[in-house]
Amino acid sequence: MAGNKSDIEIAQEAHLKPIVDVAADLGLEATSLEPYGRYKAKINVDALASRPRAGKLVLVSAITPTPAGEGKTTTSVGLADALRRLKKRAVLALREPSLGPVFGIKGGAAGGGYAQVVPMEDINLHFTGDFHAIGAANNLLAAIIDNHIKQGNELHIDPRRITWRRAVDMNDRQLRHIVSGLGGVAHGVVREDGFDITVASEVMAAFCLSADLADLKARLGRMVIGSTYEGAPVTAHDLSAEGAMTALLKDAIKPNLVQTLEGTPALMHGGPFANIAHGCNSIIATDCALKLGEYAVTEAGFGADLGAEKFCDIACRAAGFTPSVCVLVATVRALKMHGGVAKDALAQEDVEAVVAGLPNLERHIANMSDVFGLPVVVAINAFPTDTAKELDAVKAACSNLGVSVALSEVWARGGAGGEDLAREVIRLAEEDQAELTYCYDTELDIRTKLQQIVQKIYGARDVELTPSATRQLAQIEERGFGNLPLCMAKTQYSFSDNARLLGAPSDFTVTVRELKVAAGAGFVVALTGAIMTMPGLPKHPAAERIDVLPDGRIVGLF
Amino acid sequence: MAGNKSDIEIAQEAHLKPIVDVAADLGLEATSLEPYGRYKAKINVDALASRPRAGKLVLVSAITPTPAGEGKTTTSVGLADALRRLKKRAVLALREPSLGPVFGIKGGAAGGGYAQVVPMEDINLHFTGDFHAIGAANNLLAAIIDNHIKQGNELHIDPRRITWRRAVDMNDRQLRHIVSGLGGVAHGVVREDGFDITVASEVMAAFCLSADLADLKARLGRMVIGSTYEGAPVTAHDLSAEGAMTALLKDAIKPNLVQTLEGTPALMHGGPFANIAHGCNSIIATDCALKLGEYAVTEAGFGADLGAEKFCDIACRAAGFTPSVCVLVATVRALKMHGGVAKDALAQEDVEAVVAGLPNLERHIANMSDVFGLPVVVAINAFPTDTAKELDAVKAACSNLGVSVALSEVWARGGAGGEDLAREVIRLAEEDQAELTYCYDTELDIRTKLQQIVQKIYGARDVELTPSATRQLAQIEERGFGNLPLCMAKTQYSFSDNARLLGAPSDFTVTVRELKVAAGAGFVVALTGAIMTMPGLPKHPAAERIDVLPDGRIVGLF
Repeated sequence: MAGNKSDIEIAQEAHLKPIVDVAADLGLEATSLEPYGRYKAKINVDALASRPRAGKLVLVSAITPTPAGEGKTTTSVGLADALRRLKKRAVLALREPSLGPVFGIKGGAAGGGYAQVVPMEDINLHFTGDFHAIGAANNLLAAIIDNHIKQGNELHIDPRRITWRRAVDMNDRQLRHIVSGLGGVAHGVVREDGFDITVASEVMAAFCLSADLADLKARLGRMVIGSTYEGAPVTAHDLSAEGAMTALLKDAIKPNLVQTLEGTPALMHGGPFANIAHGCNSIIATDCALKLGEYAVTEAGFGADLGAEKFCDIACRAAGFTPSVCVLVATVRALKMHGGVAKDALAQEDVEAVVAGLPNLERHIANMSDVFGLPVVVAINAFPTDTAKELDAVKAACSNLGVSVALSEVWARGGAGGEDLAREVIRLAEEDQAELTYCYDTELDIRTKLQQIVQKIYGARDVELTPSATRQLAQIEERGFGNLPLCMAKTQYSFSDNARLLGAPSDFTVTVRELKVAAGAGFVVALTGAIMTMPGLPKHPAAERIDVLPDGRIVGLF
Repeated sequence: MAGNKSDIEIAQEAHLKPIVDVAADLGLEATSLEPYGRYKAKINVDALASRPRAGKLVLVSAITPTPAGEGKTTTSVGLADALRRLKKRAVLALREPSLGPVFGIKGGAAGGGYAQVVPMEDINLHFTGDFHAIGAANNLLAAIIDNHIKQGNELHIDPRRITWRRAVDMNDRQLRHIVSGLGGVAHGVVREDGFDITVASEVMAAFCLSADLADLKARLGRMVIGSTYEGAPVTAHDLSAEGAMTALLKDAIKPNLVQTLEGTPALMHGGPFANIAHGCNSIIATDCALKLGEYAVTEAGFGADLGAEKFCDIACRAAGFTPSVCVLVATVRALKMHGGVAKDALAQEDVEAVVAGLPNLERHIANMSDVFGLPVVVAINAFPTDTAKELDAVKAACSNLGVSVALSEVWARGGAGGEDLAREVIRLAEEDQAELTYCYDTELDIRTKLQQIVQKIYGARDVELTPSATRQLAQIEERGFGNLPLCMAKTQYSFSDNARLLGAPSDFTVTVRELKVAAGAGFVVALTGAIMTMPGLPKHPAAERIDVLPDGRIVGLF
């Protein structure tokens, strides 16, 4: 709620520009546009192929998330609106929301208050169908695998060694672990099986890292679905599946154009999980934003230790992006939680707790500036309960570090509340000081790369591998995948692999319990702790409150 | 192939009109249109609410299908094109294709040769996302059911008595019978479960029978998902699920506008299975076609004993439609199979076999004219192997019965090949002789209704119910669903419930082995024999041949 209004109420009151006008503002001709209704469109990027990436890239990330909330998307949206107010042609590049959280807890995921992307209901409900297309491509491969086995199993696929899981864009814990192929000879081969939420699928990750449709097809073909009885890897290409999978994705691959409440163009495209995958919108969308805008504002999932690290080490490396500025979103409330305050006591002023929580922010600042070489602006996302003293404590800390800081009131005031932040972003971007360096060299062996991430970024003493992870490491390097970048799957709630260690913990080790190749996405996933690839619904899911009124209006999305 | 060209080659060579022009031809203003790319659009039907259904409805059905093929969709498309050539404002209302058959055997389902609906690739691959939306609504309910049980099971749902299945738009036999909820306490409750293909779901049937979004929501709320431990039915409404399900369907409910190769407007919308459900496009699309066109050409799945019967007894009854003419599609090849010729001998002339197969056609003619009161035109869908003598035999039989007959060459020649057929359709429609009577009165008890269908339409001696079907019948009537129309689930390959009894069998009984209520769709399904609700892929699925060329063109759809 901003004031007395819910997000959906604010969104429904907005006057949207026809999407062709939003596109025209960007210099996009109608022939490059495939409208989906009046306020959404897909962009045919072929016409942009030879354009330079003239825009400056602004990466929005955050401190370590807490249940108090940070507002990364809200800040990104408001920042782009503010840049527009300052006469900079800004374009957003964001992830599309998954239906899972929409019906689960959140009820919506396109910003909040007066910093939202619209049409909010459409974006949250199917949008242009990309995630269903990705799910269908994923499930077509699954059906082809089991059909191959049923029809004679020429490739000798071992049903016990299939690692490819089915996918659905829904929070449905009942499907995490299933036994499929029951019912007798006519109905398949009995085996252990399961579903992930679509955003956790490798197809999603490969989709978001693809340069174009041809690259996507090559990536899909490389995906490993399991092994033969003899232990050799089997790929989607071995099953002749990648052509049909690519056909299913021919429209999904085109980035989606929508707008903010203030009419700023927003490319929303792709949405991989930020733990099991890299958590950024598609490379194609960011590329497009850099070609169309003076400023491209993008966001990386979870805190900067996960989202921004992967954005730099995986996405920027794959696409050749260099952010000009990194915005780190912090809230007084979250800093207080890092400083030891319980969630139900956050409304009370507690400057000491803010100060006690600052080391979390400071480590993220150091990571982004010292490890990755990016100028940093801290955006304090304002909450009504923040006091002047608390805000001053954060500002003072930033000043002491020589780091830019700005209060962001975009949730309550839209772009007007983000002008201070935007001015700092412009100032740093125009200084042109960014020199992106990666956290590790991909040519190093996997264990060394792991060490560099956990030591440089997390502040850990060292990394440990379980015996099975050690075996997997050897097999991955033996199969020639040792020089891929790493995709860390770690709790987002701590720098460590223990969700309860808030603040800026030190003197800990990170345990990797599983390593697996995502050969199509082009990274090795390192899993620490139990990572959920299929969420469940809460006791009272948002779905119970979502409804359609007789006049056709949707209610209950937040 | 028509000539040397495959369907997709013909489709890709076509010059399509911008969809806004197709709509303008129909008098639809741009404000009623939501374009999906340049050649597809959804129609906002609110503006049409008060318009009369001024058009004449032409129902295209067929003789009992054989592996030789009939070409109902091709004939429907060509007929509409031919009506346009004769200066009648014709509009098609057809089902949308499912991805299942696209990747299975057929490779495509939007007509054939020079009588196709385009853009063919888009229509066959996701189209505007309706089926994914229907699957998501279905699966949201499934997730809510299992979440309810996991979170305390206030409603006392018996996990052994859940009849609601999950859905995916894919031929995936591996998912027919599964055990879900494995993995321990955190992951749900172990139970038997399974997936149907989306087109076989009750959501699809309810969607297609809905008058509007409010009616759809009411229908979704009525759907029975299983029973309590005490044996009482549990509905989607009991789980507060129908609001969110309806929100997921808010765009899907709008009919899709595309065009034929000759620019005739085609509304493709919905696509329920023709066995477990009623097999016709949405009522909303047919209603829209009747309001926009002088002639609305629609099609009902499988042979007339299944498709046309359900169109009349279920869809027309629900919507108040009255067809002006029924076109029965027959082929010489299929008649020869009904006359006893094997599939590999169909290319040889065999007039005697044609004559021996005619009783199948004759019974369908009698059903449509005598039982349902509709004027009939037989359309002989021409094949290159047909001989003049064989064609004459069919024409002579029709003449003897006083029934119109016309050769249709639309596959090879487009609308020009359908003008004779169109002239007969116009002549009969303008005579205005149709007086639709239903096969049975819904107020009769279920057993009597079953008897009337099997005796009047199938030519059976009687119907028999298994002991369990008898028990189900009693329970259904006791719960107050006895006065719903019946939806027969029977093999499409015979008038009887034995797929091997070709021609016009008599002296047989039909055995109903299961009766179940689809309270949201608004019918009682009577299952005879084993009905497949989740198909499998063949040994070499079409998916292996479907590909995307470097220039972005799709190949391998047929």
